[in-house]
Amino acid sequence: MEQKKPYYAVIFTSKQTKNIAGYAGMTEFMERLAKEQPGFLGMESARDTIGITVSNWESLEAIKNWKQQSQHILAQQKGRENWYNWYHVRICKVAHEYEFHRE
Amino acid sequence: MEQKKPYYAVIFTSKQTKNIAGYAGMTEFMERLAKEQPGFLGMESARDTIGITVSNWESLEAIKNWKQQSQHILAQQKGRENWYNWYHVRICKVAHEYEFHRE
Repeated sequence: MEQKKPYYAVIFTSKQTKNIAGYAGMTEFMERLAKEQPGFLGMESARDTIGITVSNWESLEAIKNWKQQSQHILAQQKGRENWYNWYHVRICKVAHEYEFHRE
Repeated sequence: MEQKKPYYAVIFTSKQTKNIAGYAGMTEFMERLAKEQPGFLGMESARDTIGITVSNWESLEAIKNWKQQSQHILAQQKGRENWYNWYHVRICKVAHEYEFHRE
């Protein structure tokens, strides 16, 4: 499917510490919260050596609002205190896309 | 580190088939080839249920040239024939970014 409207992707890459108590539960909670945010369009994640999460949003404003959501701010703090050795956030405008699906 | 110049990210998400003979070797080969491409800036990957690879490029032209690189075209064909149930390619302009590093 081609998206009709322009939209934005947030690429979140991260390296976990060994201190990940509470991480899985928080991730689940944040995924539920994100889905309720205005302008949220979807999310995909994978993790092996590093984690990569890509979330899609209708606008830069929607991304900013999510960054500032109060429970998400607490999760970000916990992430910096405990769970991540590093993370990298890229906010991107999707210029073009295409897909392949096996028949 | 903040990137000085505007740059582009290609988000490649994919779901593998069970028929992945030859996949690992091709991935390694493609990573080596990509690094030699003009305008290539870096690449990160993770895979569990799905795979996500993000590669960074200086320009849309560099991305187009990589897509059309002859050995990469063969790899793409093999991917559609054998290795992927689906894939999704998003070409994005990085608007803004920030990082956290544990001290």
